[in-house]
Amino acid sequence: MAFKADIFTLYPDMFPGTLGMALAGKALADGVWSLDVHNIRDAATDKHRSVDDTPAGGGAGMVLRADVLARSLDAHLPDSDGRPKLLMSPRGLPLTQPMVRDLAGGPGAVIVCGRFEGVDERAIEARGLQEVSIGDYVLSGGEVAAQVLLDAVIRLLPGVMGNDTSGTQESFETGLLEHPHYTRPVEWEGRAIPDILRSGDHKKIEAWRREQAEALTRERRPDLLGD
Amino acid sequence: MAFKADIFTLYPDMFPGTLGMALAGKALADGVWSLDVHNIRDAATDKHRSVDDTPAGGGAGMVLRADVLARSLDAHLPDSDGRPKLLMSPRGLPLTQPMVRDLAGGPGAVIVCGRFEGVDERAIEARGLQEVSIGDYVLSGGEVAAQVLLDAVIRLLPGVMGNDTSGTQESFETGLLEHPHYTRPVEWEGRAIPDILRSGDHKKIEAWRREQAEALTRERRPDLLGD
Repeated sequence: MAFKADIFTLYPDMFPGTLGMALAGKALADGVWSLDVHNIRDAATDKHRSVDDTPAGGGAGMVLRADVLARSLDAHLPDSDGRPKLLMSPRGLPLTQPMVRDLAGGPGAVIVCGRFEGVDERAIEARGLQEVSIGDYVLSGGEVAAQVLLDAVIRLLPGVMGNDTSGTQESFETGLLEHPHYTRPVEWEGRAIPDILRSGDHKKIEAWRREQAEALTRERRPDLLGD
Repeated sequence: MAFKADIFTLYPDMFPGTLGMALAGKALADGVWSLDVHNIRDAATDKHRSVDDTPAGGGAGMVLRADVLARSLDAHLPDSDGRPKLLMSPRGLPLTQPMVRDLAGGPGAVIVCGRFEGVDERAIEARGLQEVSIGDYVLSGGEVAAQVLLDAVIRLLPGVMGNDTSGTQESFETGLLEHPHYTRPVEWEGRAIPDILRSGDHKKIEAWRREQAEALTRERRPDLLGD
């Protein structure tokens, strides 16, 4: 069964966005994954179609209402829906490549895109939303974060990447940042491709790449080495 | 002078994408920031308009050519361009809210969106590209990562957020994840807004929120506390 994504958002026109083009777009057209986008505002009940209100206890911004969000989710998801329900939020657990791989091995994902100052905590608790963060910065909304998460997942779905070995030798799959890449021309602006890469000695090339990856990781991301 | 973003990509149709709507889209229409998108393929010189080639030393995937990328950058950027030149890449330094704030205080950014297995290292060195990563996962390309970076920056540009205090009390600006939010209705599905938030005692509310933020950070992101 194809990977099924359901998005809950106040900006349905943002989808499929980048996911409708290139690798993810071709996979969508090929039926490798499917996308349903739901406008949370359709679950509003007052004449102004309001979805947010001021924060209890005071403070800046507006809060997405629990009743409206829950009504939107309930209208589109059967009780038996076994997919993880995610809320894109800077308060969430950081997205990692192992989480991406887990999601890619499952039936799909329900993704709520936060907006405003935040989402009423009771909806998060009552509907079992798992907060996921794509990084330590603040976005204007969860829509582009949802596209990031889905892009990472979709490229790992069966048949999406042309070359199946591409997924396993890259950054984070080996625990290291990736070694430098070179391609033709051999010399460019007085800079040559390192001789070793043109030696044809695959053992030496492998060892050089490993050294380079380790040095780069030590320089930029010592946290990944666990030292 | 407005914040100026120049994007170099093989998928120019992906822009402005999410950045053309909602908060960022309004700011774009209002001239708070401007966007120029350049197709790297326009700098190809052979009849197939090729931009990539096989990796020197062997291995999976294709590598973006140094000569083509550099030609594309040189055609559109004056020597005097003082903006940071970024390459979205999982090998980069992790994007953080302080970096976002720095970028928002500057004249703009040049952003190269990587694709394929990687970019020829010589172009990165010769053109002084700074690799930036939005998180520890692998994307099919840098386009959605560029949109994430710009979304985070644009919301901090002067006049973009309706309420100017919104930018300073949220996740990562205080070093803590944000406290839970609540709004009307007071009771929903048997769940009430915590009494303290309805007490009107602003000192107690502040203290409660701080406690909640600390507890949440300790649970989900002890790394942020530096313990």
